[in-house]
Amino acid sequence: MAAARHELPIGVFDSGIGGLTVLKALLERLPGESYLYLGDTARLPYGTKTAAAVERYALQAVAELIRRGVKAVVVACNTASAAALPALLAAHPGLPIVGVIEPGAAAAVAATHSGHIAVLATEGTVRGGAYQREIVKRRADARVEAVAATLFVALAEEGWVRGEIVASIARRYLAPLFAAATDAPDTVVLGCTHFPPLAAAISAIVGPHVQIVDSAFTSAGALAQLLESRGLRSAAGNAGTVRFLVTDGEQRFARVGPTFLGRPIDDAEVERVNL
Amino acid sequence: MAAARHELPIGVFDSGIGGLTVLKALLERLPGESYLYLGDTARLPYGTKTAAAVERYALQAVAELIRRGVKAVVVACNTASAAALPALLAAHPGLPIVGVIEPGAAAAVAATHSGHIAVLATEGTVRGGAYQREIVKRRADARVEAVAATLFVALAEEGWVRGEIVASIARRYLAPLFAAATDAPDTVVLGCTHFPPLAAAISAIVGPHVQIVDSAFTSAGALAQLLESRGLRSAAGNAGTVRFLVTDGEQRFARVGPTFLGRPIDDAEVERVNL
Repeated sequence: MAAARHELPIGVFDSGIGGLTVLKALLERLPGESYLYLGDTARLPYGTKTAAAVERYALQAVAELIRRGVKAVVVACNTASAAALPALLAAHPGLPIVGVIEPGAAAAVAATHSGHIAVLATEGTVRGGAYQREIVKRRADARVEAVAATLFVALAEEGWVRGEIVASIARRYLAPLFAAATDAPDTVVLGCTHFPPLAAAISAIVGPHVQIVDSAFTSAGALAQLLESRGLRSAAGNAGTVRFLVTDGEQRFARVGPTFLGRPIDDAEVERVNL
Repeated sequence: MAAARHELPIGVFDSGIGGLTVLKALLERLPGESYLYLGDTARLPYGTKTAAAVERYALQAVAELIRRGVKAVVVACNTASAAALPALLAAHPGLPIVGVIEPGAAAAVAATHSGHIAVLATEGTVRGGAYQREIVKRRADARVEAVAATLFVALAEEGWVRGEIVASIARRYLAPLFAAATDAPDTVVLGCTHFPPLAAAISAIVGPHVQIVDSAFTSAGALAQLLESRGLRSAAGNAGTVRFLVTDGEQRFARVGPTFLGRPIDDAEVERVNL
């Protein structure tokens, strides 16, 4: 007998490994659910690719998740959320799909007092301007400064998340914005799933009075609301399962992933899939 | 009338942008030739992908170059040279195909006195062990230490090729190998096409007595020899042309490329191609 719809797993789609920070937040917020994570590791990173390419890849990935059976999809990649969410919603009406940009923008607007917000993201996300638009839509007088912090991705993948090198790089990206004590942003949005492991290093540069908004957590909250409203929460007390699909490099995924997921990943949990 | 074979361009295949350092060396060594450069920017970087995926991509890319007409192919990407050269040679017998690993290994063996050689490369190249094998094949008592210098790729793409951040990162990767003055390598191979812009920073860390071998230049020499031996050199005095094909992001290619090519790239020189 086919599983009841609310017992199906939640699909989590990412360009590769960074989306595991979103899965981590989902596991904390919705622990009774099952998850099917798909990381498009053969084509990562999305952050330096065009919106058209990212949209095409996202449509393929979400079609694969649907083929395997999911009750909802979280687009855990900021670049893909910015580039592909409209196309995904149009292709799959009726399926709950949550990106990370809108929840992140909403959380930033809730956190800021001055309305002066810095968004740290990849080149693609910055260029697309989706955070800027979503923030201004919610607070018309907001001043948003977007910084493409490309090297943060490589630092997080290398597992270099503290120490002098990280501090120097964070300073180089952020010092120009935070130099003027009286006109600095009061809120920083981590607009790339690779950045949460660097949150402490970023906070040390911008100062303790600046709020750090992690899109992962707010997106998990947005999904929880959406599942509730559609009656799609798993029955209470269930022990959920987690499975991983990757398009390349199962072993590297299992080795690098724990930096982002916060728990070990066994090779046997990771399956290769061709899109 | 179809062009005579020796007047066809030389195909240069790379995972993206870094191979422009090889094209730069080719333009210096063989200035009368025409070039057709193909950067697989939609799927870069290759360095963290499996050998099987890289081989598949390389076969597609070289088939496209052949379809457009080339008299020889340079595989300008170290990762692709290591993973795909045997398959490329098997698929296209009769076509001169040169990778960057064998020439780089030969140059390292020529440069070293002690036989103690450091290879800086991507994760994929290091894991594949091709430099290690090619060096030991030429000098049985060689001691090769391979370092996966992942962050160098991001640094070069960001255009950060000098200053304290670069020095700290180079120190972190290299200091363990070069700490002991009496037992340090005397030769460093730049085993990734992204690394030549960082050569000065690397040299500053390892010291002026350590030779830096750039695979790009030695590969250009190897191709020159191969073309001569097969009577495929372009007629003397020709003014060659250069065209660029990329699988994504023409504008980014034109913007980031000059760091590697050493001359401006006009948007109009760059064409998008689907593999």
